[in-house]
Parts: sequence; C-alpha cells; structure tokens
Amino acid sequence: MNEQTCTVEILPDRIKARAKAGELLADVLDRAGVPLSLYCHKRGVCGKCAVRVLSGALPFPAALEAALLEARGLGPDHRLACLYEVRGDVVVETIPGSRPERVSVIEAGTGAAVIVDPSVKKLSLSLERPSLYSPTSIADALRAALRTPGLVLPLAALAKLGGTPALAPSRPVTVVLYEDLEVLDIEPEEGGKEIFGLAVDLGTTTVAAELVDLRAGKVVDRAASVNAQVSYGADVVSRITFAFENPDNLRRLRRAAVQLINDMAGAMARRSGVARHRIYDAVVAGNTAMNHILSGVPVDSLAMAPFHAVFSALPAVAAADIGLALHPQARMYVAPNIKSFVGGDVAAGLAASGFAAKAGTALYIDLGTNGEIVLKRGRDFAATSTAAGPAFEGMTISCGMLAVAGAVHAASWDHGFKLRTIDDLPPQGICGTGLVDVLATALRRGLLGRDGRIVGPEKKIRLADRLALTQQDVRDVQLAVAAIRSGVRLMLREFRIAPADIDRVVVAGAFGSSLDIDNAVSIGLLPNIAADRISFIGNASLAGARLLLLSRPARQAAEDLAARISLVSLATRPDFQDTFVQSLEFAPFPEGGP
Amino acid sequence: MNEQTCTVEILPDRIKARAKAGELLADVLDRAGVPLSLYCHKRGVCGKCAVRVLSGALPFPAALEAALLEARGLGPDHRLACLYEVRGDVVVETIPGSRPERVSVIEAGTGAAVIVDPSVKKLSLSLERPSLYSPTSIADALRAALRTPGLVLPLAALAKLGGTPALAPSRPVTVVLYEDLEVLDIEPEEGGKEIFGLAVDLGTTTVAAELVDLRAGKVVDRAASVNAQVSYGADVVSRITFAFENPDNLRRLRRAAVQLINDMAGAMARRSGVARHRIYDAVVAGNTAMNHILSGVPVDSLAMAPFHAVFSALPAVAAADIGLALHPQARMYVAPNIKSFVGGDVAAGLAASGFAAKAGTALYIDLGTNGEIVLKRGRDFAATSTAAGPAFEGMTISCGMLAVAGAVHAASWDHGFKLRTIDDLPPQGICGTGLVDVLATALRRGLLGRDGRIVGPEKKIRLADRLALTQQDVRDVQLAVAAIRSGVRLMLREFRIAPADIDRVVVAGAFGSSLDIDNAVSIGLLPNIAADRISFIGNASLAGARLLLLSRPARQAAEDLAARISLVSLATRPDFQDTFVQSLEFAPFPEGGP
Repeated sequence: MNEQTCTVEILPDRIKARAKAGELLADVLDRAGVPLSLYCHKRGVCGKCAVRVLSGALPFPAALEAALLEARGLGPDHRLACLYEVRGDVVVETIPGSRPERVSVIEAGTGAAVIVDPSVKKLSLSLERPSLYSPTSIADALRAALRTPGLVLPLAALAKLGGTPALAPSRPVTVVLYEDLEVLDIEPEEGGKEIFGLAVDLGTTTVAAELVDLRAGKVVDRAASVNAQVSYGADVVSRITFAFENPDNLRRLRRAAVQLINDMAGAMARRSGVARHRIYDAVVAGNTAMNHILSGVPVDSLAMAPFHAVFSALPAVAAADIGLALHPQARMYVAPNIKSFVGGDVAAGLAASGFAAKAGTALYIDLGTNGEIVLKRGRDFAATSTAAGPAFEGMTISCGMLAVAGAVHAASWDHGFKLRTIDDLPPQGICGTGLVDVLATALRRGLLGRDGRIVGPEKKIRLADRLALTQQDVRDVQLAVAAIRSGVRLMLREFRIAPADIDRVVVAGAFGSSLDIDNAVSIGLLPNIAADRISFIGNASLAGARLLLLSRPARQAAEDLAARISLVSLATRPDFQDTFVQSLEFAPFPEGGP
Repeated sequence: MNEQTCTVEILPDRIKARAKAGELLADVLDRAGVPLSLYCHKRGVCGKCAVRVLSGALPFPAALEAALLEARGLGPDHRLACLYEVRGDVVVETIPGSRPERVSVIEAGTGAAVIVDPSVKKLSLSLERPSLYSPTSIADALRAALRTPGLVLPLAALAKLGGTPALAPSRPVTVVLYEDLEVLDIEPEEGGKEIFGLAVDLGTTTVAAELVDLRAGKVVDRAASVNAQVSYGADVVSRITFAFENPDNLRRLRRAAVQLINDMAGAMARRSGVARHRIYDAVVAGNTAMNHILSGVPVDSLAMAPFHAVFSALPAVAAADIGLALHPQARMYVAPNIKSFVGGDVAAGLAASGFAAKAGTALYIDLGTNGEIVLKRGRDFAATSTAAGPAFEGMTISCGMLAVAGAVHAASWDHGFKLRTIDDLPPQGICGTGLVDVLATALRRGLLGRDGRIVGPEKKIRLADRLALTQQDVRDVQLAVAAIRSGVRLMLREFRIAPADIDRVVVAGAFGSSLDIDNAVSIGLLPNIAADRISFIGNASLAGARLLLLSRPARQAAEDLAARISLVSLATRPDFQDTFVQSLEFAPFPEGGP
C-alpha cells in the first residue's frame, strides 16, 4: 500500500474506520454507515454536518466555516465533516442535529423510513464582492461560493442576481437550489428559510393532495376532491376517448385538472398560512392517461392499439408551464409511468410501500377506478390493469361519497348496523371501506345472497335514516370486486402461483382510511390467505408522491423500477370471460388455487 | 499488444492508418486526419458519411443503412463509416459529399475555414411502432432510434410525438435536434429539410443581422439598422444609467432591441421567401451591457464600481423567452462576455478572425461606439475599452449615416473629392470609412490642420452638392480617433511593447466595408507600422455571430478564450490624460515608441 492510511474512531457509535490521507471526513463516516446531513451537498455552506473532534488535527477553519459553527453555538473543537480532510488518526463525535432527518411516508408502518433529501434546498450565503478587474462575473462568484462550476443560472435567477438587493456588499442572500445544480431563485435573507412542496395523487375519480414542509419532511395540510374531469367521462377510457376526439378536449381536461390542483393548493396554503410562492416543488402521481393529459401530451396512442404511452419517465418540468400557480420557478415532477395502463400512481405506491425491497413473492393491488395488480416474484415484476370503475370511490353509489369527513368508513353488526364515520360526524354517505364492511356484514347476516341479490321485498340494505344501499349499488360493487378478483386470479394463473405461495399482499387505495381485511377476503375482493400476510396501506400513491418530493434518490429508484416491470395482457387469455363471470360471486377465493 | 490491429488504407489520400479491431471506421478516418461529415453524430441515420469499401469485409447492412445508401444512389460496396466496425485490413475510398462542408466566415480572408457543424440539425426517420406490450413508450422508441438514451424531450416535443401524424405507421418524421441531445420539434416529413439561423451584431449604435442557411453555411440575406435604443442614450454608459434609474427602463431598452431584431428577421425572411418558423437558432454578439439588457438582466452592477458583469458565458436560452419571434422552440445563444466593458461582440470578433490561433504579438482593435483593444502576447491576452462615441457610425456627423446603400465609404482626390458609394448610388451621406478617407485627404491637401481646424473662412469641407463636413463633425471624429489612439498607445506602454514588436494588427468595425489602411495610419487612428501587417476585416462581430451559429466547437472555444482574457484599466494610469490630449493631433503615431 503506497498511500498513508489513518484510523477514524466515530463516537458515540464506537466504530473504527480506515481512511486514506486526504479523504473527507464526511465520506469516511458515510462509508462507515454513519451518514451525516449533507444538506448543501458537501459545499461547506450549510453547517449541518458539524462534528466534534476529540483528538487529532484541528486546522484553522476558514471564515465561513467558523461563522457557521458559531451560528450553531459550537465550540472551537468542532469542524464541518464535509471540509475536514483526514490527515492522521482522529477521534470524532457526531452531535445532535448533524445526522440526517428520517421520516416515514406510510403511516401504517410497512414503508421504510426515508432520509429527507428534497430536490429543492435553500442555502444562505454572503457573496464575496468581486474586486475591480477581478476575473469573475457575479454569476462566476456565485459558482465559486457554491463550489459548483457547472451551476445553472436561468435568466430569471440572473435577473435577480443583477438586482440591487443582491449587490449590497456582504449582505447575505438565500439561494434556492434545485437538485444542487440549478438556481431557482435568489431571495433576500429576510424572505425566510421555508420550503414547501405539493404532493398530488391525481386519480381518475379522486384527487388527493398534501402540502409538505420540505425541511422537516412533515405534512402541513391535506385535501381531497372529486376530479373535476369526471364531467367529461367517469373512467379512464372515456376520458381518453373524449381527448382523442378533438385537441380542444385535451385542453379542457387539462385545464380542469390544473384548476383543481391550484384550488386545492390555494386552500391548503390559506388554511396553513403558507405563502403560495413558498411552494417550490410538486410531485404528481397519476395513471398514464392522467399524467399525459396534465402534461398536455395527446393520448391518441393510448386510444388505439397497440396502446402505447408517449412517455414513461419525464424529467422535472417548470410548474408554470403546466399552469400551476406556485413559486414562479417551481418545478413539477411526474411519477414515472410503468406502461400504457399502469401509471405513475402505481410507481409511486410501489415506492412508498417499499414493495421492491423485500424478498419473496408478493402482490400489490391498487384499488382505484383503474385497478392495478403488480406481481413480484424474486426480482421479476409484472403488472396488469383492470377496469374496476369508480364504485369504491363512491361515484356510482346512490349514497356514496369520497373518504372525507362524515363518510361511513367502517361498519359492524350489533342488533343492526353499527356505523363509524370519518371524524365521527353524523353519517352523510358511505365510502369504499364502508361498502366492503356493509356488504360482508349483510352477507353474513343473510341480508344479501352470494349472487348479489338483496333479500327481502324492499330490495334495500338500510344503514341509517336516509342511508341505504340499493340493488343497483350492490351490482356496481359486485362488478368492481369481480374486476379485481378475476385480475388477481388470472395473474396468479398466468405465473402458476398458488395463493399459498404468496408471502405478502399489499393493498392500496384512496377509498378509505382502513380496510377490514377479513371482510375484504370474505366478499372475495382479496385472496383467501392468512390475514397477517395482507396489509392495507391506504392512499399509497399520495404517500409515494410525498416520498418522491422528500427524497431525490427515491425518484431515480422509482424510474429504475418502472422500467423493469413488464405488462401482462389478461384480456387475451381464453379463460378471461369465464373467470370474470365466476368472480361475480360474493365469496372467498377458492381454497385450492386461483 | 493483446488486441488485434488492422490496417486501414484511405483513398484517394493514400493514407495508411492503424485501427484496433472493433473500432469504428469513422473514428479511424478522423484520427488519420480525414474527417467525414458526421451530421447525425454517428447515429447511422443521416447517411452522410458513406464510403466505398474497395477491399475488406462487407457485412450485410441493416435495413436503415441500406435505405440511406440507396437514397444516395450508392452501390452495394458502400457502407456508412459511422456503423462500419473494422475487423480486418480494409481499403476504403471517400466519395464526393461525404467530407464535411467548410466555409469561410471572414470574406477578407484572414479567418480560417470552418467545418459546418451547427447546433440545430434535422434528421429524418421512421419510428418503429412499438408492438403490443413491448417495453417502450414512444419517447423511448425515439431514443432507441436515435441511439441516444439521454435524449431530452421537452413537453412541446412530447406533445408533437403523441399527435396523430407522428403515430401513422412507418411514416417518416423529421426530428429537429439541438446539440444532438434535445428534440426541439417533430415535424412531418413534407415540412422540408430547411434550417435557418439568425446572426446578430447588437451594437450600441448599429445593429447588423444575417439570415443564414445552416445546412449550406451560406448567408441568405443581410440587414443593418440604427439601434432603436439610441433614443434612450447615445453610448453604453448613458444606456446603463437609463436602465439603472428604473426597472421599467430596462424593459423599455429590452423591448426596443427585441422588436428591432424581430423586424430585421421578419424583413429578411420575407425578402428571401423563408418562413420565420424555419429559423431555429440565433446567435447575438453584443457588448456586455447590450447582452445583459437583451437577456433582461439588470445592469446595476455595470453602473457602479467595481463594474462587474452579472454573467460572462450564458448557456443557450429559449428565443421565445427573450421575445424573439422565430420557431417557437428556437434557441438563442449569446456570445460570451469577456469582462464588464469588453463584451461578446469582441469575443465573437476574435473567434471570427482566428486571432488566438496565430503566434506572435498582435493587436485586435474593434472600432465601435465602445472601442475595444485586445493585446495578444504569446498565450497571454489583455483587453481594455475606450469610449470612442458613435461618430464612426455616422451618428453625430451632420451628413453621417450607417454603412448602407448610398453611403460614401471611400474618397480620394482628383481635382476635388472623388467619392465612392455603397452600391454606387448617388451619395446620401458618409459612413465611417469614408470619414477616414476624407479627413486624411483633407489633411494632405491642406484643407485641414493637424490640430483639426478646417482651413478657410467657410469652416466646411465640401464633398458634393449638399454634402459637407462641419468643424463640429471634424471635432467629433478627432475625439473618436484620440480615444482609440490613446488606448492603443497606453496599452502598448502598459505591456512595454514598441510598435515595431507588433506582428499583426487586426482592425474590425461595422462602420464600412473597406478601410484604407494608409489613410487610417496617416490620421493616427492605427499604429504607424507596415501596412501589410495591418488587416481590416469589417464587421467581425457579425461574422463571429455567424461562426458561432455554424460551429458548435467554436462556441466552446470562444468561451474558453473569453475566460482567459484579463482586463486592463488604463484610466487609472497617471499618463492617461496627457496621452489623450497628445492623441488629439491628426498625425501618425510617433515613430519611436508608443
């Protein structure tokens, strides 16, 4: 070995690591499994990776480093790990606040904790004024200060940089950076450190959104609404057909979605006291057609065989180009489409659930208007989609409603139906998880036949005053269940997998906050396997959108996974029709096999 | 040596080159100094690099390669050099049309020939329709066809790609590519192969522009006009001051420039029968302040010490963002600013003249409203600027005018002034080169004293009917000459260079088509050195803008050179005032030294 090696002891972990002379302490700690918060990407300007040097060399800190340490109230034995070059044996101790934030995006707990590493960051710095005849322009001085020779400065940022406030000598400015490379804005220091992002699950029927604090990784507010596009068609195929008829229709659909997202973002911002121009980033997870329409890309190729998406992954675009009223330079990222009818909503959901990371054979079932099923076997992934319709989102049900306050989301029997509503308000309607509970209960109590016929002359299932399911309502749910159930059965048959071989079933859906697994199994919505192998993770698309908002590496991972998933056509199987008709029965999956 | 090496004989050059097995023939030829036209950047889709294989392996060509060879009427012994992998000894012959086009950007002949390699290219291809459930989106199919995994597709291009015309099976489409990486547009094949670019010299006083055919490298039309910004101030400093006063003023200046460029582009397009949306690229060469104003970047930092540019090099921006009415996705590139008062016009002029490429000590003098002087000594470059004013562009001269049709651009004496006009029209006024000739002649004939006083009671130099120079006109020229002359003298003194040590003087200026060197030396505008060492290259900024339009590598070279030039402040020298006053004399430079 030619190079000198040193020993780095890391406290309080008591880990000893080897380092080459000249290596950055931050890199040594990362390799040793002790990652630090490298918020400014090792540029030495955020001060978040400070550590205490207990023994070893303590070179004199540069002016900015000293100022950053002082600002955190740290003593003279502290240094920034991203600037400290290991030159001999050293003992360091990490300090509170120097390790990266981790948050969980799935509340139910099946998702892994994610390190908060958003695409948008704010860095505070004082630009050194170039001296007379120094070789730099102001843009080059900023590049030097950020140690980023390739720093991208769009015209809007240059215009700010040339404005008088930014020119005041040694007055600190805030640089809003996108992906550590592009300057979105130059703000006066007093503009504040707040950075918000918008996560959107753009469903065919339901649009759910969150306002997210991108520094803390926390949800600030939530909103849900019926997709305003429903007036142009209830399901994906009718929207595609509508858009295909006439380019103006594509614009109509687009405008409806954009306006709804803007309204939801505006309402959340108002409620939370957040200025809209502090929202710098947005992630949208929608199915392939929704993603295309929002981006203004024609869906003609989704209307005609062989049914192809125009794009799968899409680099972040200017949110203003889409029509989103956020910060003028805000970006929008669209979760990558997997295939023509398996979209970014599924890619986001898979990311949120950590579906790909765990070993074994697993099923991912997204219960949306378009139902999607992803099968994982070892490292192979296959997906299919099935038209479930909007019944679970309450759209065709006489007393149906979205899973919002006042919706019946759970039901049991105690001398009659016992209903639970979201936020414990008086029942105003029923959402998807409530429907599953009511039908399973009605089936057990003999109020409903396995063929879906309501027992008794009234042909209604009475739930409360002015709240009842009609025979038509039951038929709609029956068709939705059959679509999912036949999809799962055919998928398992296609890959010759018995239900007993399935290690995990992950169920996602925006139709309620908690799905009773036993009830879902008893009406045949989910495969008949042990309840402890099935988990319901709620609106995983929205959680995935939040994940992609909070973690840059997660975006790349989602794109890589999306590109690996193959599409399976079940409709061309000879047993397709027969299996669908069989699946119309309200009963558990057959024990033996799919 | 482990790898097999082969011999490639290249005809008609009779060059023998060695190649590693598996190397691309195109790369071998390039290394051997026989570059081929790699228009599509070795993607095998343009067919321009076809060669004849006289002996050696002839693997079966792929369908597209065969079609491209057939389209050029080439026999079965031809192959594309960018697809042909050398696997054994081979003899090849280049064929007409396969070597790259070279054009000269400087007509006077001092500039080197440049290989036409514009940023915008059109490639024709038939997209293979993805089959049912194939793993690609249409965008990915295009990436595969162009063999460019990182191909960038903005929303506008995706929208076109998703439109029905692009979807028709095996119907060829034209892809408009920027820098071989980004798709500007997808056009129907019948849209034509034409690609035009706009070169603009955005001078403080004069704006000159060219419409350029980017395939042939030829100028299609030219236009020149007074900069519409002159109503807000005659020189750079007054424009900067005006813009500094009020952000609305910056917008006014910007609008004036944008509208003028649009008018000129529109007029040229109309005259040439070129559709404006066939102009896909623009290069603007202006001084630092002009470049900032056009880009909408405040010039506050140019108004206040220490006088800094906000940006030097600027990556290409969307021309539509600037306000240029060209192709909706057209790009605009701004020639890199060197320093605060030495701008992209000089960088462009240096590029056009090949100033940096030649050895020795050389001076580059740009005779504009802002006069710039660049000194080259070996590999070191220094620049300064001097306020000459707009006299040479005819702006303050009573009978002055731009160097356009009808302007007196040369004068001699034959029993009175003998005038020559541009396009041989009746004289309507006098431009800069005409002024130099008239003053030198008047000086020789005793009509003018060396102190600038007009001899005789009339105090006029009569040139023709209704065409005369007043005493005030002569004073304006006298000040302009003194500004340039003192600048050159101080620059030489600063670097301790005697006029005899100067190997070359390159003079550029938009003020006329031909400068009489002897006359310019006799009034003291140019140093007193042998006339054969001085060359006048006309509007080098415009030629440079054209060069940067035609050659991508030239852009990088111009940026690299701009970053290497240091700025010299002559105004802080103690001999500044004295030298300026001395330089007011109409006489050759002192023989001895500067």
